[in-house]
Order: sequence, then structure tokens, then C-alpha cells
Amino acid sequence: MTFRYARRYCGPLRAAILDWAGTTLDHGCHAPVASFIAAFADAGITVSVAEARAPMGQPKWHHIRAIADQPRIAAAWAQRHGHAPTDADVDALYQRFLPLQTAMVAEHADLIPGALEAVQAMRARGMKVGSTTGYPRQVMEAVIPRAVAQGLDIDCIISADDGPPGRPSPFPALAALARLGVYPVEAAVKIGDTVVDVEEGLNGGMWSVGLAVSGNEVGLGLADWQALPIAEQDALRRAATARLAAAGAHYVIDSIAGIGPVLDDIDQRLARGEKP
Amino acid sequence: MTFRYARRYCGPLRAAILDWAGTTLDHGCHAPVASFIAAFADAGITVSVAEARAPMGQPKWHHIRAIADQPRIAAAWAQRHGHAPTDADVDALYQRFLPLQTAMVAEHADLIPGALEAVQAMRARGMKVGSTTGYPRQVMEAVIPRAVAQGLDIDCIISADDGPPGRPSPFPALAALARLGVYPVEAAVKIGDTVVDVEEGLNGGMWSVGLAVSGNEVGLGLADWQALPIAEQDALRRAATARLAAAGAHYVIDSIAGIGPVLDDIDQRLARGEKP
Amino acid sequence: MTFRYARRYCGPLRAAILDWAGTTLDHGCHAPVASFIAAFADAGITVSVAEARAPMGQPKWHHIRAIADQPRIAAAWAQRHGHAPTDADVDALYQRFLPLQTAMVAEHADLIPGALEAVQAMRARGMKVGSTTGYPRQVMEAVIPRAVAQGLDIDCIISADDGPPGRPSPFPALAALARLGVYPVEAAVKIGDTVVDVEEGLNGGMWSVGLAVSGNEVGLGLADWQALPIAEQDALRRAATARLAAAGAHYVIDSIAGIGPVLDDIDQRLARGEKP
Amino acid sequence: MTFRYARRYCGPLRAAILDWAGTTLDHGCHAPVASFIAAFADAGITVSVAEARAPMGQPKWHHIRAIADQPRIAAAWAQRHGHAPTDADVDALYQRFLPLQTAMVAEHADLIPGALEAVQAMRARGMKVGSTTGYPRQVMEAVIPRAVAQGLDIDCIISADDGPPGRPSPFPALAALARLGVYPVEAAVKIGDTVVDVEEGLNGGMWSVGLAVSGNEVGLGLADWQALPIAEQDALRRAATARLAAAGAHYVIDSIAGIGPVLDDIDQRLARGEKP
Amino acid sequence: MTFRYARRYCGPLRAAILDWAGTTLDHGCHAPVASFIAAFADAGITVSVAEARAPMGQPKWHHIRAIADQPRIAAAWAQRHGHAPTDADVDALYQRFLPLQTAMVAEHADLIPGALEAVQAMRARGMKVGSTTGYPRQVMEAVIPRAVAQGLDIDCIISADDGPPGRPSPFPALAALARLGVYPVEAAVKIGDTVVDVEEGLNGGMWSVGLAVSGNEVGLGLADWQALPIAEQDALRRAATARLAAAGAHYVIDSIAGIGPVLDDIDQRLARGEKP
Amino acid sequence: MTFRYARRYCGPLRAAILDWAGTTLDHGCHAPVASFIAAFADAGITVSVAEARAPMGQPKWHHIRAIADQPRIAAAWAQRHGHAPTDADVDALYQRFLPLQTAMVAEHADLIPGALEAVQAMRARGMKVGSTTGYPRQVMEAVIPRAVAQGLDIDCIISADDGPPGRPSPFPALAALARLGVYPVEAAVKIGDTVVDVEEGLNGGMWSVGLAVSGNEVGLGLADWQALPIAEQDALRRAATARLAAAGAHYVIDSIAGIGPVLDDIDQRLARGEKP
Repeated sequence: MTFRYARRYCGPLRAAILDWAGTTLDHGCHAPVASFIAAFADAGITVSVAEARAPMGQPKWHHIRAIADQPRIAAAWAQRHGHAPTDADVDALYQRFLPLQTAMVAEHADLIPGALEAVQAMRARGMKVGSTTGYPRQVMEAVIPRAVAQGLDIDCIISADDGPPGRPSPFPALAALARLGVYPVEAAVKIGDTVVDVEEGLNGGMWSVGLAVSGNEVGLGLADWQALPIAEQDALRRAATARLAAAGAHYVIDSIAGIGPVLDDIDQRLARGEKP
Repeated sequence: MTFRYARRYCGPLRAAILDWAGTTLDHGCHAPVASFIAAFADAGITVSVAEARAPMGQPKWHHIRAIADQPRIAAAWAQRHGHAPTDADVDALYQRFLPLQTAMVAEHADLIPGALEAVQAMRARGMKVGSTTGYPRQVMEAVIPRAVAQGLDIDCIISADDGPPGRPSPFPALAALARLGVYPVEAAVKIGDTVVDVEEGLNGGMWSVGLAVSGNEVGLGLADWQALPIAEQDALRRAATARLAAAGAHYVIDSIAGIGPVLDDIDQRLARGEKP
Repeated sequence: MTFRYARRYCGPLRAAILDWAGTTLDHGCHAPVASFIAAFADAGITVSVAEARAPMGQPKWHHIRAIADQPRIAAAWAQRHGHAPTDADVDALYQRFLPLQTAMVAEHADLIPGALEAVQAMRARGMKVGSTTGYPRQVMEAVIPRAVAQGLDIDCIISADDGPPGRPSPFPALAALARLGVYPVEAAVKIGDTVVDVEEGLNGGMWSVGLAVSGNEVGLGLADWQALPIAEQDALRRAATARLAAAGAHYVIDSIAGIGPVLDDIDQRLARGEKP
Repeated sequence: MTFRYARRYCGPLRAAILDWAGTTLDHGCHAPVASFIAAFADAGITVSVAEARAPMGQPKWHHIRAIADQPRIAAAWAQRHGHAPTDADVDALYQRFLPLQTAMVAEHADLIPGALEAVQAMRARGMKVGSTTGYPRQVMEAVIPRAVAQGLDIDCIISADDGPPGRPSPFPALAALARLGVYPVEAAVKIGDTVVDVEEGLNGGMWSVGLAVSGNEVGLGLADWQALPIAEQDALRRAATARLAAAGAHYVIDSIAGIGPVLDDIDQRLARGEKP
Repeated sequence: MTFRYARRYCGPLRAAILDWAGTTLDHGCHAPVASFIAAFADAGITVSVAEARAPMGQPKWHHIRAIADQPRIAAAWAQRHGHAPTDADVDALYQRFLPLQTAMVAEHADLIPGALEAVQAMRARGMKVGSTTGYPRQVMEAVIPRAVAQGLDIDCIISADDGPPGRPSPFPALAALARLGVYPVEAAVKIGDTVVDVEEGLNGGMWSVGLAVSGNEVGLGLADWQALPIAEQDALRRAATARLAAAGAHYVIDSIAGIGPVLDDIDQRLARGEKP
Repeated sequence: MTFRYARRYCGPLRAAILDWAGTTLDHGCHAPVASFIAAFADAGITVSVAEARAPMGQPKWHHIRAIADQPRIAAAWAQRHGHAPTDADVDALYQRFLPLQTAMVAEHADLIPGALEAVQAMRARGMKVGSTTGYPRQVMEAVIPRAVAQGLDIDCIISADDGPPGRPSPFPALAALARLGVYPVEAAVKIGDTVVDVEEGLNGGMWSVGLAVSGNEVGLGLADWQALPIAEQDALRRAATARLAAAGAHYVIDSIAGIGPVLDDIDQRLARGEKP
């Protein structure tokens, strides 16, 4: 007789994979934006905040490539330098960007409220906590001591130059799972603030949570956000939430501070044999 | 208004990840069995074929550890060597095993009928073809020339000592996907002949196909298999199929020669938005 | 890469669309039955309560047409009037019926116990409350003051002659949603006491709740119902429930007094991304 | 005993509801864009094509309101007219816009290749063909004769000023269904070229098909589109497809010429008891 | 790690369980109706065809009890016999009914067109063919020779007095499966012409097919049916189909002659792992 | 219009069907093992505990046949008796086994802790409690008084020789349902300690619960189990649980003492319209 047996993981979540800037620290994701703008400015090109933010979430070399490829900027570059921006130009911009970035991250390293408690709560429910980031290792070496000094301790970090091709591919998050020894993939949840963060999780067969307010989608520091009238907060939150939801995020919340009920809900869905 | 958007990949399969012994070559998976028996024999311990086969699919060091831990063998070892087998003993057995294995694989490297055509058909439908194996790199270096000489060309090989923890973890297969640059994980299918092969695919969020006859589950060379009466073939096939199906394989077929209709069916299920 | 994005509404219910007679007032749905019988009696034809009730839920002109088309009645009509009942006969019956109906509804306008509290509870959870009815506008003008006097206030009323083709079509309920400005359709629940009420909701993509006891299916006034022995109540309830359930009602309850847990359950199902 | 009966429509599609500009005629959706630009130019404000296109799909008065509310344009208006654009300003722009629009539509009324055959094929499979549009009735009166002259005959047209609140609400499409007498809602498919077209269908419980190339998303006339290199076509198609798919469209195709296989697939899904 | 394994039968149908009168022979199900009427007539009570048909599908003793319990008939009985019909009265009616029935079945035993071919086709696809019936064994002994003489050969017959409580319970059909040695229950399909036939299959976890035209729901002999105008056939078919569908039948067809495509469709659904 | 109505039972569980040895009494399932060993010993063949346990759950005659067919035992038999074991040999062994068994069961009839409370709790929630067993009636007659003396009262018992073909067929459990008059099949749950117990329930369309610790899978008496170190208990429990889960059990728990939450969960799933 012919039977098919569908296996379903029905235990609890075993790991979370966090993004860094805009997720655990740097509310509004300012460090990279400021560094991109400064690096282009050094090459004589003015880049707006919106232009600098658009490709956020990718590895930084690719991010610079994407800024340079925007039609207005490519045209400005050609006018100034006599040719469209080449990969060699991007290499040079990237070399200029790295020390700027390393300097900036130290200035924008305050933990996002609730991040510490969220990581502790994950540990308390038996989860491991890994991370991936679009920053290269050299930049992370400036970030990590600041995070540790504030009490944040993450089990592993996959940097942009640690090997696997970056977001929206799932390979950084899967490399983190391999370090943590956690599987099946549906026992993990990816948490981040950009569309490519959401896609990284989905592409790896994980649960995927988008953070609408604390990161790049709203793009405001904590004080600036809190100073906004409620109506403007609502409008910004609604638009940011819609973009991350339409990317397929299983859940969209304001910031990592609200992750608790999401983890509870995923555990219940796993117990019923659901897959992400 | 609150909407949830569930993203579903609905394109075709983009990669297959194949096991080696028992899947593409060495019908019946003889090379490792013979090598394990010989390595233990050199240490004065007689191991039966069934005992040598039981842990099949794991990386070879762990396989030797698992053989040694079987109660009867552990007892025989203790009687002969004065203590239960230690990790140092397993290290020594593994060192003895490696050259034996390297020699054996050259003798058991005939392609399984249909393997070549299956890989060509995968390429023709636009799929990449990667692989993972319980063999270490050193052994694969003896296998690969024999495979190439018969026309088999695989895009990448993740060996047992290439880094990530081995089967039943999904990390070898996911490392192969990263090499191939293929995602999301549901666009890949893992194909192999053991329970841990099946689990490697499932744990990585991939489709998973078990091969009941050509590999370790039946454990017979091609000529021996063909010489069996139909009724005995049926009994062996049924039992092997049941074990792989109960592990959660989405499909169980006799050998890779029958993979075509399975790929068609998966493509149709993906087009309907199903996930593995 | 090809992805499909399935959008799911996962907010709470935003509107209820109520039927009138047998749902919010006139326990047992007596007013139309008495009027139909009187109108036919004026034309010399005796119609039983069961015959008068059978087509309940339709617009009243069509209801009269359906009574007249029942074989026994058509035969009696032919015997008395010399021909099968024509549309002109139905027009005449309808003109006779309207003032009878208008008089009757004033006598059968007591709110069904719990209706007031149910509407208030819907408002308290942020829902709008619309309605549709098989009564024409002229009759509703006699009903509304009686309802308002008892405290019942409904956001909009679509009468049988307000335009769209009637039940079992979904168009009256959809017209009510348009007035309320509520969508998507799965954010609404239709509540009524007849099979065509249930179908009106289903055909419009809404949740659909059948009321087994308070309306036409049991057909008893409140005092008559309460005077019944429990066993007879059970038998009548069971049969009525089965008819509404077999029509595809998502829920069947005794009367609108029990709607609270149903709304809670629908909200939970919507939150999980279920559709009606 | 307690049973629940889930009713599923499993017959074929019974109606299609088509959008007009960008769907059946005016490849690239030029008429309204040109008219918006001209109306604003008459008021001394230069509006770019991109700015004029952004709110496409809404009723035209709201479209003008949305153009005027874009920050750059609101600022330019304030500089020129001394105050932010008021509803009275929008009324005036709309009055200026209407005759421009009426003139423009006559110039941009060529049928999109395949539209005629698509409508005929729908009729041949027993479907009715209705329509909704963001144009007011006055403009449609200029469009319809041009369409009829080319052989296009639609069963009903719901214009922007025909009553129900417009897209993304489902009420225009539902009003078309009421005219056609077609239900349940899952027996209908909405076809259009904008995000609000897609949402109109979804919000009404219908199947929803997005057209990526022929309408506003790419925004090119037929000749301009055909003159593009394949690579640029691919890039534009991919981006447009992604936007409509992420809005939740069940299917995204280039133009209505490709609707046949989509209708077949929906019929098969309905036959299996699926809902949109 | 915690996994759940859902087993799904994905082989083909292995058995059909057929009803007799109205399904394989006696188009219109005349034999029992005529016998009930005659038995009551002998007791001085006139029973109409509709009254005699209403409880069709149950074991015959219970059928007589159900006829006698109809209010009009109970009243007539009381008037004639001085008391409501007792179980002893039903025993007497049943004793009178049995020989009448045995005589009648011989007169109404023509195979329904297509029944023979349907059973042969089932056998050809490897299915066993069992049956259940509301007739007691004594009556079946008159039916079977007539069926065999026309070529109909069924693997087993569970009569009304063979032990298990009758329809709508699933026990007769499950007893047939036990005789045939066929399981799991989802590998079987029940086919019959009454609501209780449909429920017998559903209650046993089987696929359930209702026959709308050939049996009790339409209640016409083959010649009478064929003599009807198409429009009347359509009306009768539609009403009968609706009643069987609303009972939850997975499929409703006119007669067993159309069973082929149904069996194909069930096989495809089983292959996909669906359950009834 | 064509609709499909899927009927779903959404009431509570109405019956449990329990296995006996290893489920309600005889922790570790010792009685049959000891009897099999003794019967073979009388025929001069030594059978190990593992060999005697392997086919557990089947009717006892078939169990003896399966022991005799194991290659080592068949060979030993042939050496001793000059021929492979025949059915006549099995008959003789069975005759010898029966009185041994009858004696043994009296010695191994202590209720498993929690069994009494579990049955009482089932009754309290309105469930009937039936049973099936691999023991023949003659043996059960020795078991029942012992069970009753400890307070255990079961509504019906289907013994191995009561007619229907035995496990893994569903017919014993379905025969118990027929005795209890309980249907549909999804309103019942089968509870037992072996793979064939699990399959009996699944094959009958019921919910199926496996007991990992109290029965044959671990095979230890209560005192022996409790004396094990936690780590060894965990290892045995994990392996036993995996075997029963991979057979498709909907739930696997240690013993019947833990059945309460399982029944609650099934009731919730039924209320949502789920099927086993």
C-alpha cells in the first residue's frame, strides 16, 4: 500500500537571527547613510538622504554600486568625471567609505529600547541568538565593543565579507544557523528592518519579521521619532508596514521591543504543524 | 487596514543536490561497507555487513564512532582491548579507514544506470546540479576522476570535511546551494539513498527524494539485484521504500533513473504555490 | 524569480449586515405570513401557514409569485379564476398585500430579546451595522419608528425595492457595505434567519450566520416557543439548524442574542488569515 | 450530531470586469496623463509625467487632489497662488481637466492588441463582460463610440461618477456584477493595469489579474514599447510585475492578450473548490 | 527534536460500495414504494407516493416506522385503529410488507443502463466491488438471481438484517470493506441514490457519490424519465442534485453510468494526498 | 449554479478505543512475551525477548507465525525438526501458547497507573470506551475479571477471534464502534502501544495515539522503568516515540495517564472542522 508521510516540525523556535543597524542599535539606521553621503561628497557628488537609503540592507559595496547606478547620480558622475561610474570607481568609493563608516558607527551605536530585554527573553525560552549584517567585519569590530558595553551579547555574527553572497539571498542567515547548529530551518526566525532582511528569511525557509519604525523604512533617530505628532507617526508607520508586509513578512511590528507576542504566536503555529 | 501577504515561490526547480555513493555511482553502496569492515578487522574485530551499514549516510568519522558504539561491537572491543572504544580509537580506525576507502572507491565507481541521463535532463530544464557526500575530500579526489571519465560532471561538491556539521543537518546541502547561488530553498531538491539524506533535505526546507533500490537500503550491487526473483525484489523494495517514506521523503523511487516524473510533479506543485 | 503573493485580510470584523423580521424583531416572523394569508383569502384562496412560509426571505412580490406557483395553490386558483395565476394576478395580490403588511408589521414589531444588546456590542467593538430586508421601503417606513422607539438604531437599510436584484443574490448586502464604506467583503458578516439570508452572505464573500430559532425556520412567537417542552424545542431546533447549516452557514445559533462568541471566533479566524 | 457544511462554488467563471485605459485601449495610459499635465499647466504649474502618473487608477477628481498634494507641487502652487491647493482649486482644475480629457481620449483610443479577441473568447466560454473605469460618464461618452467602432462591445460600464465610492474599494466592480446579475463573487475576475485595480478585485472577493506592460505601470505607447531593446523591456516588465504581484494579484501578465490560459487556470482552481 | 508525521494514503481507489435499488437496478426505485403503499393499503390506510418515498434509504422496518410516524398518517391510523401506530403495528406491517416486496423486486429488477459497464470498469482498474442495501436478506435472495442473469456480479452484499445498525450509520459499508479486506477507509468510495447513502459513506471516512436521477430523488422509471421534456428533466435534476450535494456528497452525477470520470478524479486527489 | 458542500464533523470526541496489554494493564507488555518464549521453549527452540517482541500488536496466531518466520528461528527450527515451520506447527504452538498465556495474563494484570482515571475522565466528558486486543476471547476471559476487580470497566471488547481480520486492519476498531453505535469515524480515537495499534486507528479514519513508554516499545515493567536513570529513560522514550510518530500517530505520549490534554486538543481541532 502506498502512503506518503509528511514530516512537520512541531517543537518551539530554536533560534533568532537578528540584523544589526536599525534592529538592535542605531535607531533610524543613520550610520551608513551619513557615511555614504560623505564618501560621495568626497568624490564631488551630492547624494540626498533618500537616494542614500534606497538600497539599504545589501552588503555595503553593492549598496554603493546601487547608489551610483541611480540615473540622476550616474549622470552627475558622468558630467563630473567624464564617464559613468565604473567598478573601479566603486572600489575607490568603498575604500573611502570604510573608515568613514567605522567612525560613524561608534557615534550611532545606542541600543534600540527593548533590544536587550528581547535577547534575554529569547535566551530564557531556550533560543540561540545569531546575527547577520551588511557591515563588513572591519566595521563590526567597531560596533561590537559598543554593543557589549551596553550588555548585548550575540552568539554569532555573519558579516558582509564572511563569504556567502549577501541579502536578499538566505545564505548569511543560513551560515548563522550552521554556526549555531540549529535546524530545521523552520525552527528559526529572521528579524530585520529592510525588505532584503525580510527576503533573506523567506528565501531560507524561516519565519520572517519586519521592523517598521526603528530602522531604515522610517529612517528617524529615536528622539526625532518621539517628537513627531501621533498622526505623522501613524502615516509613516502605515507606509513602512505596508512595504514590509507586501514583501511577504509573516509579521510586521514597530521594533524588536514588541517581539514577545510574535514568538509566542510562531510557537503556537509550529505546534499545530504549520510551516512559514 | 491590516493585510497579510504570504509570498510563494511559483517558478520551477532551480537546483538538485545529489548524494554520491548509492545515488550517482556504486550501486548498493559497497565501497564504504567494505572499508569499514576491513578497518575493524585490522583492529581484530569482526563486523557484519548489517552492522557496518546501519549508520550509513553520516560523515565517515561519525559512522565509525556509531559502529563502535553498537553494544555487541563495543563489548567485543572491550574484551579485546580492555576498554570501550575511545575517540582516540576511532581516530586510529579512521586513519586506517581512509586509505582503504580511497582504494575501495576506485573499485566501486561504476555509474548507476540512468544517472548520467538524469543529470543531463536536469541541465536541460535549466537546473544546476550540486552534491554533498559523507566522504572526505581526500576520498572524493579518488572518486571524481572516475566519475568524470564516465561523463558525469557536477557543479559543486561539499565533502564531509568541508566545514559545516554533517547530515542529518541541512548544512552541507545549504552550502551547496550557496555555491550555486540558488534560492529560495524550496527551489531545490535533495536526492539520496539514506534516511539522513532525506532528513538533510527536509531540514533545509527543500524537496526530498529517497532512492530505495540503488543504495544502502537494499545494499546490493546491480548484478546481484537483477539476479533476484521478482518477489524478493518486491519485498526488499517495499521495506526500503517504507523506511524512506516514513522519514518524510516527499517521493521515493527506485533509483535516480526515475527522477524525471518527480521533477515534473514538483514543478507543478511549485506552480500551484505549494511548499515542501 | 517568480513569486506569488497571496493577500489576506487579518484585521477584525468591520461590519454586520442584519436581516429584519425574524432577526432583530418579530420573533417567529409572523407579520408577512399573516399578510400573505390575508391577501390570498381576499382572492378566495385558502393558504396554509406552511405554504405561506416556504419561500420566506425573498422580496415580497417574488414571494407571492412563489406561493401562487405551488401546485396545490395554482390548481385552486385555476379552479376559482379559470386560469393559472398570471403576473397581473400577482401584481394585484401584491397591491392588496402591501397595506395589509404595513398594518401587520406594526403589530409584530417587538424586538427579539438580545437584539439591542447585540447591536450595541457590535458598535462597541468598532463595527458598523447595516441591514437588508425583503420588505419594500413603504413597509419599512412602518417598521423603523417602532424599532427606533425600542432603541434599535441601524446605520443603513437596503429595502427590497431599493434597486439591486434580491436574495439569494448578494447585491442587497453588498449595497449595504457600499453605503457603510466597509471592505474587503471578508470583513463583513451577514446574519439572518432563512436559507436565502445565508446564501446572500455566502454569495457576497462574507461570513454567514444562520438564526435557527427566532425566525421563519421554527416560525413561533416568543411565548409559544417558550411554552414548548424542552424535547420539542430540541427537535425543532435540530431540524432548523440542519437546514441552515446544510446551506453552508459558517455558524448557526438560536438567535442574535448568541452572536458574541461567533464574532470573537470570526475575529480569531481572520487574524489567522482565514477567509469565509 | 454537529456538522459544519462548507459551501464551495465549483462552476466556471461567469464574468470578467475590465478596466478601460491601459487595459482594453490606450496602450500606456496616455490620455489621462496628458490631460492632467495640461490642466496644471493652465494653472501655471509644471507637472512631470511621473508625478502625473503616480495616483493612477483612482477617480479623476481624487487623482487631481493627489497630484496637488505631492509636496513639491503643493509648494509650487503655494508660491504661485499664495496658498496650498484647496478643494475649490481642485474643483477648478477638474472642470478644466474634463474637456481636455474628453479631447485627449479620442486621440488615444486605439484598442490594445488582443483585447477584441479576449472579449470574444470570454463570451465564447459563456462569460459576461462588464467594466469599471476611473473616467466620469462624460468622458466615457467620448470613449465608447471609438471602442464600438473598433468592434469592442462591453455589457455594462460603471463610471467614476455612477455612485459607489471608487477604487481601491470593490464597489464599482460589485455594481457591475449586480448589473450583470452574476454571483457568487468568486465566479468573477477583475482585470486591470494598476495597483488599485488589483485591490478592487481582491476587496470584492474576486480573482484579480494585473496587466504589467500595456498600462500605467510601464506607461509607454505600443510603438515605444516595441522599439525598446529586449533587455530594457525585461527590466521594465520585471519591476511592473513585481509591484502588481506584491499587491496580491493572483496572476500578472503583460496584457489582456494573454488572458486565455489564466481563465483556464482559474476554472480549474474553481473546479477543485478553491477560492480567490 | 519534535516532529509530527502525517500519513497520507496516496494509492488508487481499492473498492466501491454500491447501493442496490436506484443505483444498480430498478431505475426510480419503484419496488419498495409500491410495496409500502400496498402494505399500508392492506391496513386500510392510503399512503401517497411522496409519503412513501420520504424516508428512503433506511432499513425497511425503520422505513415503515417513519412512514407511520408522519403526522397525517399517524392521525389517519388513529382514526381507523383507535390508537397511534405501535411497534407491534409496525411489526405486522413489516410482515405483510416482506412478501409484497419480494414479489415486487422481481418485477423491478432491470439493470440501470451503464451499471454493468461501470462494475466491469471498476474491476479493470483493480477495484473490488461490494454492496449494502436497505433490503433484508430474504428480499435480496429474490433480487440476486435477476441481477446475475443480467451479468451483474458483486463481491459481497451486506443486507439490512446482517447485523450492524443501518444507514446513515457507516457500519454496513464498513462491514463490506471488512469482507473485501480493503483499507484504509479513504481507499473506498460509497455510491448511492439517497441522502442516507451519502451519509453512510461520509460517516465511514470514505468518498461519497450521490446519484441524482436514477433513484429515489427523482423517482421515475427510465421510460418516464426519458419521456420528460428537457426543461422538466433539468428542473428535477437540479433539485435532486442540490439535496444530495447539500448532504455533503463529494460528487453528484445522474447515474452510475457517469462514474468513470469521478473515479479518475478521486484517484488524482488521492495521489496528491487528499482525504475525503 | 454548481456548488460543492464539504461536510465536517465539529462536535466533540464520542468514543475511545483502547488496546489492552501495554495500554490499560501489564506495563511493559510482559504476559505475551513470556508465553511466546515458553511455547517455543517447549518445542525446543530458544527465542530471545527481542525476537518475541518484534511482531507485537498482531493477533497471537499470526504473531507466532511471524516469530517462526524470522530467519534465525526458522533455521533453528529446521535444524531441530527437519523442516521449516509449517502452519500445522504454528497451530500446535498456538495450542500450547493459549493456556500458557491464560496463566501468564493473570500474573501480569496490574492496571497501568492512570488508566482508571483516564477511563473515568473519558466517561465524564460523554465518551464511550471500547477496546480491541490481539488476545483471543479465551485469554480475555482471564483478563477481564482481574481488570474489573481493579475497577476498570470497558463498554465492549473485540477479541482477536471475534471475526474481522486483525490489525493493522481497522476492522477490530470499527467493529467496536459499531457495538458502541458511535460515528462518524473521526469522532473516535484509537489508543495503543504498538505500530499496528497506530495503523489500526489511521486505517479506520480515526485519530490515533501512540503510547511510547508503558507498552511493548520500551518493554519494561513499571518498577524496572522507574529504576532507570533519567538519561536512559530519555533515550528509550525518544526512540520509542520516534517509531510511533513515524508510523503516523497524531500524538505520542508516555502512557494513558497523559491522555487528558490530547483529548482536549482533538476536541479543539474537531471544533475547527479538522479531520484526522
